[in-house]
Amino acid sequence: MRLLLISLLFAVLLSCNEKTGTSDYPPMFAEQLARTQVQVEGFMEQGVEVPTPKDMAGGYTHEVHKQNWKTLRAAGALYRHTGEERYAVFVRDALLAYAAVYQDWPIHPTNRSYATGKIFWQCLNDANWLVYVSEAYADIYDWLDAETQSKLNTELFRPMADFLSVENPQFFNRIHNHSTWANAAVGMIGLVMEDEELVQRALYGIPADELPDDLRDDDSGRIKSKTGRAGFLAQLDLSFSPDGYFTEGPYYLRYALSPFLLFGRMLGDKRPDLGVLEYRDGILGKAIFGMLSQADPKGDFFPLNDSQKGMSVYAPEVVKAVDYGYFYYGKSDELLSIAEKQGSVTLDDAGLAVATAIAAGKAKPFKPASLAYTDGPEGDEGGVGVLRATGSADQTTALVMKYSAQGMGHGHFDKLAYSLYNHTGEVIQDYGAARWVNIDQKGGGRYLRENNTFAKQTIAHNTLVIGQTSHYEGDIRIGEKYHPDLYAFEASDAGLQLMSAKAQNVYPGRELHRSQWLLTDDAFSHPLMIDIFRVKGGGAATLDLPTWYHGQLLQTNFAYQTNNELAPLGDGQGYQHIWLEAAAKPDTNLLSFNFFNRNVFYTQTSVGQAGDEFLFVRLGANDPEFNLRRDQAVVHRRKAAGSSTFVSLLETHGSYSTLDEVAREPFGHITDLKLLVDTDPYTAISFRHKNGQSWMLLLSNQDASPDGQHNLVINGTTHEWSGVHHLIKNE
Amino acid sequence: MRLLLISLLFAVLLSCNEKTGTSDYPPMFAEQLARTQVQVEGFMEQGVEVPTPKDMAGGYTHEVHKQNWKTLRAAGALYRHTGEERYAVFVRDALLAYAAVYQDWPIHPTNRSYATGKIFWQCLNDANWLVYVSEAYADIYDWLDAETQSKLNTELFRPMADFLSVENPQFFNRIHNHSTWANAAVGMIGLVMEDEELVQRALYGIPADELPDDLRDDDSGRIKSKTGRAGFLAQLDLSFSPDGYFTEGPYYLRYALSPFLLFGRMLGDKRPDLGVLEYRDGILGKAIFGMLSQADPKGDFFPLNDSQKGMSVYAPEVVKAVDYGYFYYGKSDELLSIAEKQGSVTLDDAGLAVATAIAAGKAKPFKPASLAYTDGPEGDEGGVGVLRATGSADQTTALVMKYSAQGMGHGHFDKLAYSLYNHTGEVIQDYGAARWVNIDQKGGGRYLRENNTFAKQTIAHNTLVIGQTSHYEGDIRIGEKYHPDLYAFEASDAGLQLMSAKAQNVYPGRELHRSQWLLTDDAFSHPLMIDIFRVKGGGAATLDLPTWYHGQLLQTNFAYQTNNELAPLGDGQGYQHIWLEAAAKPDTNLLSFNFFNRNVFYTQTSVGQAGDEFLFVRLGANDPEFNLRRDQAVVHRRKAAGSSTFVSLLETHGSYSTLDEVAREPFGHITDLKLLVDTDPYTAISFRHKNGQSWMLLLSNQDASPDGQHNLVINGTTHEWSGVHHLIKNE
Ligand SMILES: [Ca+2]
Ligand SMILES: [Ca+2]
Ligand SMILES: [Ca+2]
Ligand SMILES: [Mg+2]
Ligand SMILES: [Mg+2]
Ligand SMILES: [Mg+2]
Ligand SMILES: [Mg+2]
Repeated sequence: MRLLLISLLFAVLLSCNEKTGTSDYPPMFAEQLARTQVQVEGFMEQGVEVPTPKDMAGGYTHEVHKQNWKTLRAAGALYRHTGEERYAVFVRDALLAYAAVYQDWPIHPTNRSYATGKIFWQCLNDANWLVYVSEAYADIYDWLDAETQSKLNTELFRPMADFLSVENPQFFNRIHNHSTWANAAVGMIGLVMEDEELVQRALYGIPADELPDDLRDDDSGRIKSKTGRAGFLAQLDLSFSPDGYFTEGPYYLRYALSPFLLFGRMLGDKRPDLGVLEYRDGILGKAIFGMLSQADPKGDFFPLNDSQKGMSVYAPEVVKAVDYGYFYYGKSDELLSIAEKQGSVTLDDAGLAVATAIAAGKAKPFKPASLAYTDGPEGDEGGVGVLRATGSADQTTALVMKYSAQGMGHGHFDKLAYSLYNHTGEVIQDYGAARWVNIDQKGGGRYLRENNTFAKQTIAHNTLVIGQTSHYEGDIRIGEKYHPDLYAFEASDAGLQLMSAKAQNVYPGRELHRSQWLLTDDAFSHPLMIDIFRVKGGGAATLDLPTWYHGQLLQTNFAYQTNNELAPLGDGQGYQHIWLEAAAKPDTNLLSFNFFNRNVFYTQTSVGQAGDEFLFVRLGANDPEFNLRRDQAVVHRRKAAGSSTFVSLLETHGSYSTLDEVAREPFGHITDLKLLVDTDPYTAISFRHKNGQSWMLLLSNQDASPDGQHNLVINGTTHEWSGVHHLIKNE
Repeated sequence: MRLLLISLLFAVLLSCNEKTGTSDYPPMFAEQLARTQVQVEGFMEQGVEVPTPKDMAGGYTHEVHKQNWKTLRAAGALYRHTGEERYAVFVRDALLAYAAVYQDWPIHPTNRSYATGKIFWQCLNDANWLVYVSEAYADIYDWLDAETQSKLNTELFRPMADFLSVENPQFFNRIHNHSTWANAAVGMIGLVMEDEELVQRALYGIPADELPDDLRDDDSGRIKSKTGRAGFLAQLDLSFSPDGYFTEGPYYLRYALSPFLLFGRMLGDKRPDLGVLEYRDGILGKAIFGMLSQADPKGDFFPLNDSQKGMSVYAPEVVKAVDYGYFYYGKSDELLSIAEKQGSVTLDDAGLAVATAIAAGKAKPFKPASLAYTDGPEGDEGGVGVLRATGSADQTTALVMKYSAQGMGHGHFDKLAYSLYNHTGEVIQDYGAARWVNIDQKGGGRYLRENNTFAKQTIAHNTLVIGQTSHYEGDIRIGEKYHPDLYAFEASDAGLQLMSAKAQNVYPGRELHRSQWLLTDDAFSHPLMIDIFRVKGGGAATLDLPTWYHGQLLQTNFAYQTNNELAPLGDGQGYQHIWLEAAAKPDTNLLSFNFFNRNVFYTQTSVGQAGDEFLFVRLGANDPEFNLRRDQAVVHRRKAAGSSTFVSLLETHGSYSTLDEVAREPFGHITDLKLLVDTDPYTAISFRHKNGQSWMLLLSNQDASPDGQHNLVINGTTHEWSGVHHLIKNE
């Protein structure tokens, strides 16, 4: 019934807009405006409520104040577009209601944050409120009489801006996404009020000498940055790598980007001289395109570090990233197809431009390229590599390797870990975070204990674990000292793309070196993944290389024994959470493992050595509150090994439909896979297809220069090539 | 590239059809014709191949002969619609190629079936071939010269028809879906050839006195039916209940229905006097509508008995059921919406009528009603009940209770089991079959050992297991003697719908009586399921009531202990496959269990008794080939109980989106649930909503008559009502 009414109202407003001439807007923009009107009218009818703050997130007062910032922002935009005064009146009266009580409110009674807010339990949410309400205030500012302007400025906004900055420097002056929100809030309200002191404070932070020396953040780190810098421009310099990568990964960036874009846009309008939108060679544009490209073919962000899965380029928060990316950074028609699927545009010039271009039929499919993103403000702290290649039916495979820096408190101990995606979504998964965001039943929606005990640990990832110990001993203090480095990234030949990275300090005295390729060849219906993982140095230890696959195990080419009682695989470092379902000691050098997921078949073929074990494990041990998913992995285990090399191929092949029950191409094609050469300077492998074709792949391990000259004798034949790798195909 | 060419060809043919006037066809029909032309042209270019039979299903000769029947049938239809002779020539030449070799072919060399075929490893596939090729032959018969007719009749078709009937009476003369295919094949070719002997044989079977007395089927049952009947008319009488229910369930019916519909339609054309389409009050129409209605809101068939999941009303095989259901059985506009989503129509009058009606915009949503299907030819062998009710956003909940007969060899021991579905698909699941149909890696695509050891067992289902022993001792010979009976089915009040069934011989000396309701009330955003399961009689035993839920356990209102080592829950009857992950001995009488699946929340609230246990189990023990999914259940266990009653509610509530990370209505609303009265004649429960509203539900256990008068004193208040149940709501 309620739904019916809303639809009716929507229809009436749309037709109404047609009459009043707003029908000049392109359809997506007109619809956005109509939807917004429906929502705002509903709240205007109820009247605004300004309850005394009391509750945590999810509680009543929290949700009301949160809804208020949304409604005020929307009402401001409606006034701007329709010129109807009643919207301005609504915003004004709501702000006056806040002004009447704000200064008398004490600090929020919860006292659960390092920076407790006034409206909300944390300053962060107060800053969210001020960012969005600043936009509404900007929309009506010129319409207000001088007396009301002055009243609101002095009784509400300046006190709030001071509260969020000088009264909470531990919140305002960090290099951190919380502070970006604070900087944007203070700066945006400063721009509206034309309060230059606030604008300067927002741009450059509170001068260090005005702060107590011993000021600490929530991790008891000193607030004063090593760089001595703070404020919005410092955030722009230090939050992103030069190519726009955000060290916490795309899931966090989608949240962190909002204050950058909103304050950035307002500065672009009101202080074009600062050139913020062009700053650092257009760093905000790079961050937008980078974020949109760090997603799988379905649009879900790669769940690097502490990510909740299922967040995607189609999320509401990403709408402004797409629209501003289009409007300010090159009018890319590829962004329009994302905007179309988002079904929503920003109610400003950018959204109008997007809607207009879509109405003109300009949208093109978004096809991100293979790219290596650097990490660190200088771009010299490793990074994340993404290879993309196309298979049958134009379906894309995306291969991600993570060789980035630790990523602060949300970082995982997963150096050189990979994950693989295609049109079905995840195939070889990264577990993501052990957290149900905002689902109260699971630890109040916060990070769960198992996030530390499992999700961050190395065994939760598709990378090498040595001695059942996580990378950097699972210690963030060690992790933050080091980072892997990209060794080679060759994506110019769509037929054979390589990414390769090395890590020196993950395990003392050992070097890890992983190289992965996507090979596109008519013999394979989808790109073939090739993986060579070398470890060098150190004493004998147990090497575990897990593959966390989705789907159903179909078949192996070796026998295994299942366990009729289950015990955990280990007692710490994440192993305590893993059941050992079955184990094999294969007596073959070619280990083949065939599985099935979402109607597609996969075959992993690995090189086995004498004594190798193959473990079939499942998550869920020592999980007293059912916080972990019952996901599964196979673990290639090599005992008492020092320097050693793992080689495997992953084929994606065939399909099945439960509608016609036909299995197409259900078996893999690799009949042979060999490690031919494995020396300090060179590694060479060969593999064969059932159709008789064979390939030899040669890799230079110590010289990745494009013009380096190499020659290698294999079985009496000398192979010469230049560059880091070389593929030879025999038909 | 190949795809591009096919698209081009398709486009050209479509535009070509427009020129030649076939554009008079409505779009869906014209497209179907164009697609068919593309496919047939491809095979015509290659030329037909008739290899000497050798392979099993999936092998080369099997797949070629299977493709041939499809291509020939399609070519016949093209000739019929376009009049282009080259299609007729193609069919004729292919048939002559078969005629040249058929009689010399020996029995198929595999010898793996109770009825080995000649073209295929089993007569069943030979019959499939003949059914479809008969249609092609009918299309060109009048165009052929008399000499070719005679040659094909005597050298190919009559020998084949005799082979599939008199030479294989164990295949032809059973009451079984295999024999329906045989009957249809022989009858259809007889109609085309005007061979009355074959037609009579098809309709009435081989006379019993012509058969040896000791003829046995593959289960060594006697072929001669108890009824003394065989042939197509007997199949029509004995395969369906009077309302069209098929004892093996909808998954099997989707396959078994084809020969009924194809032979039925041809008989309708050529022998209208027999009135086959109207036979048994239009039993084929009832079977069609019944099948389409035995599907969840997504269109997936309820996976009763040995079903593979994912088969749906949108499967290619169901196209003719929809089109013939529309054309011959009432022109229901609701079927058109299914046809639209199928995207395909039959190339005949029926398909044309469907496409025409769709083009005229007549399609309406398919909204099956709540219905109780009877089982058994006389409709007196129990049945399957389906309740459907609508919640917020017009989303449908479907509740299925199975109280049918055993269902022959594919039946499961799951009397009074339920399953629950909504717009997300399965919520409380039936496991289905342990089988990957046509996936060779899993036991050649056949039923797996675990189908018997787990999937058929009672503990695999949402029904009561007593003494850890399956219903009817898991013995089909006992199961086939009995069946539960419907006690009450009241669906006329959409606000409160009831189905209730009793079973007497599932466990000797005990009566099982289950009653389930869907309650629709503004207090609940989706229909509330109410479940009362009574067991009466027998000595003390352990009662286990499992709920196989999909999703993630969020929270319980009682403490539980997880196990740090896992052992199977039992040693047989399916229990050997179940790990005990955790267990509780709740000290509360209200057991609440909250879970989350596909972005919807659920809360089960049960009445606990002193000593009750709550077990958290997971599938996968004693599964040496990873044939079982790692699904999970909670088991409400009551020890040392004789007569006893289980009461529970299942709420569907709220939603979550990983895009906006907002949890709406994540908690259930039931604060109280009590079993107030539980006597032989009456059961009464009450429950309360957090908003203060409460309900009392009264059930007459022994008199389900609509006008039966009842009164019951509860807490001093006398309640009077008529009919089987009575709901009292207190606001
Ligand atoms: Ca690091
Ligand atoms: Ca991180
Ligand atoms: Ca059955
Ligand atoms: Mg991770
Ligand atoms: Mg460095
Ligand atoms: Mg079953
Ligand atoms: Mg009976």
